[in-house]
Amino acid sequence: MNRLTKIMAVVALAMTLPQGCNNNSEAGTEKSGAINRSSAAEKVYVAPGEYDEFYSFMSGGFSGQISVYGLPSGRLLKVIPVFSVDGEKGYGFNEETKPLLETTHGFIPWDDAHHPELSQTNGVPDGKYIFINGNNTPRVARVDLTTFETAEIIELPNAGGNHSSPFTTENSEYVVAGTRFSVPVPQKDVPIATYKENFKGALSFISVDPEHGHMDIDFQVLMPGYDYDLAHAGKGKSHGWMFFTTYNTEQSHTLKEVNASQNDKDYIAAINWKKAQEYIKDGKFKEMDTEYLINRYDENKHMAETIKRNKVRVLDASEYPGVVYFLPTPKSPHGVDVDPTGSYIIGNGKLNANLTVHSFDKMIQAIENESFAGDAYGIPVLNFEDVVAGTVESGGLGPLHTEFDGKGNAYTTFFISSEVVKWKLDTWEVLDRIPTYYSVGHLMIPGGDSKEPWGKYMVALNKITKDRYLPTGPELAHSAQLYDISGDKMELILDFPTIGEPHYAQAIPADLVAPNSKKIYSLEENAHPYATKSEKDTRVEKKGNEVHIYMTTIRSHFAPDNVEGIEVGDKVYFHVTNLEQDWDVPHGFSVMGAQTAELLIMPGQTETLLWEPKKPGVIPFYCTDFCSALHQEMQGYLRVSAKGQAPEVTATTGE
Amino acid sequence: MNRLTKIMAVVALAMTLPQGCNNNSEAGTEKSGAINRSSAAEKVYVAPGEYDEFYSFMSGGFSGQISVYGLPSGRLLKVIPVFSVDGEKGYGFNEETKPLLETTHGFIPWDDAHHPELSQTNGVPDGKYIFINGNNTPRVARVDLTTFETAEIIELPNAGGNHSSPFTTENSEYVVAGTRFSVPVPQKDVPIATYKENFKGALSFISVDPEHGHMDIDFQVLMPGYDYDLAHAGKGKSHGWMFFTTYNTEQSHTLKEVNASQNDKDYIAAINWKKAQEYIKDGKFKEMDTEYLINRYDENKHMAETIKRNKVRVLDASEYPGVVYFLPTPKSPHGVDVDPTGSYIIGNGKLNANLTVHSFDKMIQAIENESFAGDAYGIPVLNFEDVVAGTVESGGLGPLHTEFDGKGNAYTTFFISSEVVKWKLDTWEVLDRIPTYYSVGHLMIPGGDSKEPWGKYMVALNKITKDRYLPTGPELAHSAQLYDISGDKMELILDFPTIGEPHYAQAIPADLVAPNSKKIYSLEENAHPYATKSEKDTRVEKKGNEVHIYMTTIRSHFAPDNVEGIEVGDKVYFHVTNLEQDWDVPHGFSVMGAQTAELLIMPGQTETLLWEPKKPGVIPFYCTDFCSALHQEMQGYLRVSAKGQAPEVTATTGE
Repeated sequence: MNRLTKIMAVVALAMTLPQGCNNNSEAGTEKSGAINRSSAAEKVYVAPGEYDEFYSFMSGGFSGQISVYGLPSGRLLKVIPVFSVDGEKGYGFNEETKPLLETTHGFIPWDDAHHPELSQTNGVPDGKYIFINGNNTPRVARVDLTTFETAEIIELPNAGGNHSSPFTTENSEYVVAGTRFSVPVPQKDVPIATYKENFKGALSFISVDPEHGHMDIDFQVLMPGYDYDLAHAGKGKSHGWMFFTTYNTEQSHTLKEVNASQNDKDYIAAINWKKAQEYIKDGKFKEMDTEYLINRYDENKHMAETIKRNKVRVLDASEYPGVVYFLPTPKSPHGVDVDPTGSYIIGNGKLNANLTVHSFDKMIQAIENESFAGDAYGIPVLNFEDVVAGTVESGGLGPLHTEFDGKGNAYTTFFISSEVVKWKLDTWEVLDRIPTYYSVGHLMIPGGDSKEPWGKYMVALNKITKDRYLPTGPELAHSAQLYDISGDKMELILDFPTIGEPHYAQAIPADLVAPNSKKIYSLEENAHPYATKSEKDTRVEKKGNEVHIYMTTIRSHFAPDNVEGIEVGDKVYFHVTNLEQDWDVPHGFSVMGAQTAELLIMPGQTETLLWEPKKPGVIPFYCTDFCSALHQEMQGYLRVSAKGQAPEVTATTGE
Repeated sequence: MNRLTKIMAVVALAMTLPQGCNNNSEAGTEKSGAINRSSAAEKVYVAPGEYDEFYSFMSGGFSGQISVYGLPSGRLLKVIPVFSVDGEKGYGFNEETKPLLETTHGFIPWDDAHHPELSQTNGVPDGKYIFINGNNTPRVARVDLTTFETAEIIELPNAGGNHSSPFTTENSEYVVAGTRFSVPVPQKDVPIATYKENFKGALSFISVDPEHGHMDIDFQVLMPGYDYDLAHAGKGKSHGWMFFTTYNTEQSHTLKEVNASQNDKDYIAAINWKKAQEYIKDGKFKEMDTEYLINRYDENKHMAETIKRNKVRVLDASEYPGVVYFLPTPKSPHGVDVDPTGSYIIGNGKLNANLTVHSFDKMIQAIENESFAGDAYGIPVLNFEDVVAGTVESGGLGPLHTEFDGKGNAYTTFFISSEVVKWKLDTWEVLDRIPTYYSVGHLMIPGGDSKEPWGKYMVALNKITKDRYLPTGPELAHSAQLYDISGDKMELILDFPTIGEPHYAQAIPADLVAPNSKKIYSLEENAHPYATKSEKDTRVEKKGNEVHIYMTTIRSHFAPDNVEGIEVGDKVYFHVTNLEQDWDVPHGFSVMGAQTAELLIMPGQTETLLWEPKKPGVIPFYCTDFCSALHQEMQGYLRVSAKGQAPEVTATTGE
């Protein structure tokens, strides 16, 4: 095939999308006509005063954050800022959270967050943490589910994007992070056309400290220069293994749309991480010079600190036998999903109609038999026939992801044919199918990638919205659809728009999280170095051009609320402690014309705003979060003098 | 009273809040037990494929943005970035929108947005624009409701915050913006204690060009150094007048919680803007040197541009007879609301139990009679008894805001007693009351501050959430509650959490907005100076250390996708044009490790990302918005060389 023919062949498939989803509103209405309106309304309605059954954590995709929704209501309970600055909460603007967004590339105000993954105990989500990957500038974040705040962000060296991440093992021994795109390892200035020679893919195994949740990179596995798309850990019998999908085994570096879609099969890489651990334990690894940062937020200090690392342990897959095997899998597999028993590894070949199910037992047998089809860059390639357990003849087009209901059934999304197909494990027969509006990517069943799914609801995360909601100009929200899967047939019960692009979501019963949710921070335990625990200790200190204002808030005044002695060129640090110890009484703090955002200070917390005044004058500041009947009066003034013209610093209240 | 006694007296009132809202979950459940569950579920349920009846625009408060919700479902359709940077959309990060956030204080990445106000024709919301105020750094923004994007932001000189804004006149002749806090006018370095001598309050009258919507300041009225809290325009017979509430007529500058709550009455300032126009027309104004910026987004150029102004026309209220009168109003009035006929001006005295209703006719009569109680800074003060039409004996505590249903009824929120009270215009009798959960601030009825409300629903915007939803750590979302007000009794039908703190909201029937909603930008009409309208025109140009990459996107590749010749120290501008002309096919663009956010480019649009590479290597870029079955392949590489070491620039695709 010449280049143009190849382009046309592949593009024709991809372009089925716009046609496929040009279901107009009439078609949409017609299909949803099948909805039992009043039964569905009852099912999703959470009356005032009642609670949702599940927390659902959705990635924000290109928003960089996590959105927390209640299910079945589809109500947005909170947006947790993770990788992107958020003026609403002062995240990435106050001095305490700025370090969370530091990288070896400098401060980065944004990322593309794809896959939330709950921490697990014995293969079941435990409600302690949720991890999420930064897909653009390779990182993994950990969010603490007692505070619903980002607790830690770790950077991943040697990676070019981070898509196949942050899937965890049964006890969160590891969170993985596989490079999206291969890059020179270590980075260097080489012609892009030397891809095959110079580019590699690093898969990071991030350890999670069981007590504090602290992350670090235990080791990286260096792989051929493919693209690593998604991953899932083995469980039960397959615990100890991690599975990654690859695409671009063609190793093209341009027009991948065409050039990376040539091979009939790419691979699922099966990583025996217990074997890797043995090599590490025996000191059989290479230590590579590289730099990465770990940024940890200390909840008592109310402050993030950065730890610098300059080495990483590396195992080159081709040099460490027994660590990696390749399972040939048709048609650019996207998702790789492991059933609740750990017996089956499902490859969702996105340019395929059918699903490929591999057998873990057969894989082990083939490895023991050393029955290899050959090798790729020194990595054994198993025979497709030796490992395949079955094929699901789905009748759909473009399978992407599969989740499980814990009752022996699997549910797979089909992007091109815009539907979810329910099928039976072991027999591979299709049981049901239902349309999605439109172009579904991931789907989510609470606990649906764990050993024990709570198989009551399924959520489809759709890439295209078009006519499903009132229009909002050229930019439309992406959309989730909630299905009741408690019966034999899937039943669509609700559409709700989402924040950003939720690539994936996880959900957990409310009672595994809500009882541990923190209501306030203890003022007594506040260990912030600039905390002010009583109004009588408020003050201003000036050293050179640094001004430190030790300030407190309580309904409804600041102390101090009149500060003089500041001059143009000063760096003014407002260290504001919220003295409240009641639930849901934050105070906000902002300064007019400051080139930053506000502080939003929770009860018992201290936060710091840096202000560099540019012009003389008298500048108001005020509380931004309506806190009492006298909130509008919660205000003060800052006097700024020309450089060298300021009086002595004074800080007063009510005088 | 000594200082301490005064503090205790006032604080005791304000502190009723935590007790008032310590309705525990049992109480909450009990009250909501009155909900007719299945009828309420039916009323709020918008089944998949159906549309909401109303667009509701809620301010984000300290998020700085506008949230668009559908009613009655309470689903979040879009967050429109206005005053705060938003990595999700590249807003404030791409070169095209950066100018929108420029001020005379420099680039400001955040503000506190309080009051959305729809443009009006003949006193009725027309669905063309929505205005919103920046409360922290005084500005007003205009959002275009064909694109749902911020079209313009104007800065307000001489102001200290901007809370009593952006309320409009009957035909959006003016949008007003009154200073929240008074400041020295012009700004200067003076002791804060010279407040009474030096501080003034500027009220801006912003003209709106009927054809393009362009805003500019027509004139400012200079007022005494009070705090200006809220405003509303007259309508019908009172068209030509604007009413502002004042507080802190005590003119205190510290511990306002106490010191600004001493006077039994503050004022509603009635501004005769038609009279002011006469002075302006006759050239009787002062021209004051000051600086402010107007930032306008050009929809064809896809780019914002900044206009600098250096003068403003000023009328000092004390020197221009007939422009301003003061109506004494009890107890720190917060909201000032004008009924649909324009006959009544309602003052919501936040430290009061009752509402004060002033009569427009009586006010005019008193002015004609020159029946004044005296003056304040040269401004005539009317006699309370001369202007008051009635008092609503509400039985509630802490009235804040009133809206109308167009059927002769008014609805007032009570912050301290957490309830909405329905009462009858003309008779002032209380008809109904219903609790809110908790501490309600504003309320909103679609068109409820206009001449013709659509009085079917009422939304209460609550400041405290506590136990109403599943907990999310110390930080909880604020909350809206939807009431059916079509019958005699108000009926609570839905709770839904909100983004930021929606101080106020407006709503409009969907059919006044949806038919004009733009689906794509025309590629043909794209007038961006760096637009690339065809793949054959893509290229890279390097001049000195500036690299301009003319790039296109179409499902599913970039052109070019391999660029070499970049070196450390270069400023690389990616000008990316989305060639798609189908609805809902944006493409995203991001560069690994770039110290900025992504681009999110709508069909037909061009956006520019600036990247300053810091280290040599080969860097991936990719599409961030899942666009087709081959989205994962939509990727490219950038080769970065050390300074002075780069080869000639080349830009290729598929070669």
